[in-house]
Amino acid sequence: MKIAILGYGVVGSGALEVLTKYGYDVKRVLDIRPHPELGDKLTSNYDDILNDKEIEVVAEAIGGLEPSHTFVVKALKAGKHVVSSNKHLICEYYEELHGLAKENGVTIRFTSAVGGGIPWLYNVKRSIRCDEINKIMGIMNGTTNFILDAMITDKRDFDEVLKEAQALGYAEANPSADVDGLDTGRKAAISSSIAFDTVVKESDVSIFTMRTIKKCDIEYIVEKLNKTVRYLGFGIKSEKGISVFVEPTLLSSDALESNVNKNFNMITLFGESVGRLSFYGQGAGKYPTGNALAQDIIDIANGARSVRFNDKKINVDNGLVNRKYYIRTSCDASFSCFESEELIDGNRYIVTSEISVAYMHEIAKIISEKDPASFYAGIEE
Amino acid sequence: MKIAILGYGVVGSGALEVLTKYGYDVKRVLDIRPHPELGDKLTSNYDDILNDKEIEVVAEAIGGLEPSHTFVVKALKAGKHVVSSNKHLICEYYEELHGLAKENGVTIRFTSAVGGGIPWLYNVKRSIRCDEINKIMGIMNGTTNFILDAMITDKRDFDEVLKEAQALGYAEANPSADVDGLDTGRKAAISSSIAFDTVVKESDVSIFTMRTIKKCDIEYIVEKLNKTVRYLGFGIKSEKGISVFVEPTLLSSDALESNVNKNFNMITLFGESVGRLSFYGQGAGKYPTGNALAQDIIDIANGARSVRFNDKKINVDNGLVNRKYYIRTSCDASFSCFESEELIDGNRYIVTSEISVAYMHEIAKIISEKDPASFYAGIEE
Repeated sequence: MKIAILGYGVVGSGALEVLTKYGYDVKRVLDIRPHPELGDKLTSNYDDILNDKEIEVVAEAIGGLEPSHTFVVKALKAGKHVVSSNKHLICEYYEELHGLAKENGVTIRFTSAVGGGIPWLYNVKRSIRCDEINKIMGIMNGTTNFILDAMITDKRDFDEVLKEAQALGYAEANPSADVDGLDTGRKAAISSSIAFDTVVKESDVSIFTMRTIKKCDIEYIVEKLNKTVRYLGFGIKSEKGISVFVEPTLLSSDALESNVNKNFNMITLFGESVGRLSFYGQGAGKYPTGNALAQDIIDIANGARSVRFNDKKINVDNGLVNRKYYIRTSCDASFSCFESEELIDGNRYIVTSEISVAYMHEIAKIISEKDPASFYAGIEE
Repeated sequence: MKIAILGYGVVGSGALEVLTKYGYDVKRVLDIRPHPELGDKLTSNYDDILNDKEIEVVAEAIGGLEPSHTFVVKALKAGKHVVSSNKHLICEYYEELHGLAKENGVTIRFTSAVGGGIPWLYNVKRSIRCDEINKIMGIMNGTTNFILDAMITDKRDFDEVLKEAQALGYAEANPSADVDGLDTGRKAAISSSIAFDTVVKESDVSIFTMRTIKKCDIEYIVEKLNKTVRYLGFGIKSEKGISVFVEPTLLSSDALESNVNKNFNMITLFGESVGRLSFYGQGAGKYPTGNALAQDIIDIANGARSVRFNDKKINVDNGLVNRKYYIRTSCDASFSCFESEELIDGNRYIVTSEISVAYMHEIAKIISEKDPASFYAGIEE
C-alpha cells in the first residue's frame, strides 16, 4: 500500500520520517516549496497523486480549509483512504467527508487532529463499540496550558507569559485561535461528534476566552478558593441532548488535570461500563503528531475500513448542563445567581449558584459589555 | 462469531453483560457453580465448548493457573482465538501461549490482564508498530494505591487502612499478592514483554514490598522531602538490556502519579517519537475489566489476527538502571552510597546516591535481616 503526504511542514515531515523508518512506502509528498532532500518524491502537482492508482492512502497535513478541502474531497472520490491532522477541516466538513468516505467505500481517520500524539480519538472510537460515553472533557490545547501553568507556578501575568510562549514557538504571533478558544472548541466538537455518534458544529460550542485571566485571578483561585485553573473543552450528554463548551475551569488541586503541566494535554471520557478513562501526552509537535498520523495510516494498511457515521443529529443545547461559575469583574451588574462575592481593589470576585452554561454565557455578554476585562471560569466539582 | 466465557465470576459476568447488550453472541458460559439465570448457556463441561465448532473465541476469566492453563492450551490447539484477563496465566506461560497461537493461526489477547478497564496493553501493542518504547512505568495495582492514598490523605497507619481496604473488598483476606508486589510484578513483566518485544518472566522482576511503610515514612517523605509516594512497576530499556522492577517510589508532588488517588491506576509509556503517553482509569471491577475483555473480543470479531511475538530474548539485568533510594531503618549498617541521613526517634532516614536497582536490592537484604521492618523506596526524578 503506497502513501502520499500532502504538506511537508512540521507534521508531514514527522510522519514521513516515522513511516519511512518502519518500512512504509511514502511514494509522494506534495508541497509547493522546494525540498531537494525529497528528490523524486516531491511534487507540486496534486494530479500526480490523484491519478496514481498505486497510491491508496492520502495523508493531509497542510492545515486550514483550502486547498485541503478540495484535495481531500478529490481523494475520497477517487477511492483513496484519507487521514488528516487538520482539526479545522474535519470540524468544518465532518458530515460531508464521512458521507463521501462511505459512498466511495473508503475510510477517513484523523486521530492526530485532536491531542497531537495522544491516541485519543482512536480510543474513543474503539470505546463506543461496547460502551456509552456520557461525558468527555480535557486539556486539548498545549499553548493555553503552558500559559496557565507558568502563570500559576511563577506568579506571572498573562501578557508576559504569552510573550515567552511566542518566543518558544508554543504560541502563534496571532494567538487568538488558542487563547480565545477556537482551537479547543473545534477539538471539543470533533471529540463530541465521535463520542456521541452525531455531528457537532463549531457554531454549537459556547466559548469563554482565557485571555482575560490576570495574576489577581490566579491569586484568588489558588489562595482563597484553594483551587487551580485549566482551560478545558467539554461535551456532556443528558437525556434531552448534548452540551459542548470551552471554559477556563476551576479544579480542586488534587484533580488529575491540576498536575498536567507545561504544554501537555489530557483528555478524558466517562463510559457507562468502563468508567473514567484519561489519556495524557504531547498535544503537538513534529514527532508526536507525525507518529499519530502514521498510526492511522498503519491501521488502514492493516485493514481498518470501518466508517462509523450516524447522521441522525442529537440536539445540541448548552442550557442542559448546570454548574457553578467564578467571575471577576469591575462591572456593578448583579444577578440573582450570584451566591457569594468579595470586593478587593475594585474587583468583584463572585461565585454563582449552579446555572446553565447557556445562561452564564448570556450573563457574561452583559457584563463584558461594561467591563471587557472580566474573566469567567466554570467550577468543576 | 460465537463466543464462550470461562468463569462466571466478577469479570466474566461483567463481560457477558457488556457483550450481550451490544449484540455479541455468547453461546456458552463455563462455571462449576449453579447459575439458573444463565439457562442453557451454562455448562460445567469444557468439552461442550471445545467441541463446538461455532465457538471461535474463548474468553478465560477464571484466574489462577489451573484449570485456566489447560483450558487455554486446548482452545488454541483447537484453533480458537483466546482472550484472557488472567495476569498470572499470561505471565507464567507468555512464551508457550504466543507460540501456540502462531502455530495454530489464531490470536491471543489479554488487555484486561493489566490495568483492568484501561486499554493499556492494547495501546502499547499499537504504539510499537512505528515507535520504540524506552520505558514503561505505572500504578498497576488499585489496592496498594488505595492504601497509600489513604495513609497520606488521612494520616493513618498501614494496618488500619489495610483493614478498611479489606472491609471494602479492595484487598484480599491474604493481601500478600498486592502489598508484597507480586501482582504489580506480573503486570510489569507482561507490559515489558510487549513494550520491548521480548519475554520477561516473573522471576526477572526485583520487588520491594510496600507493607513495611509506616506513618513516620509518610511524614518524612511529605514534610521533609516534600515528595509523595506511590507503588510503581517499571520496565526500562538501555543499550545492554532491560530492567524490570517494582518499588514504592518517591515522586514530586506535581508528578501526574501524585494525583492518582483511591484505587485508580495510571500506566505510562515513553516512546522515542510519541514521547510520554499515560493511560488512567479503573484498574479492576466487574464492568471496567469486563468491558476491556469484551473490547478484545470485538477486535477479534472485527478481524484482528496478528500475533506479534519475538522469541529472541533481550537480556534482563537490574544492574543497568541507577537511581537514588530512600531507606528508613533502625539497623546500624552503613554503606558508602548513603548520601544523607537523619536520626529521628531511633529510626535512620537515609537517602542514597544513585546506585543500581540490583545493588540496592542486595543492600536491602542485608539491612532487612537485622531490621525486617525497614522500608525502601526508589526516588523518581
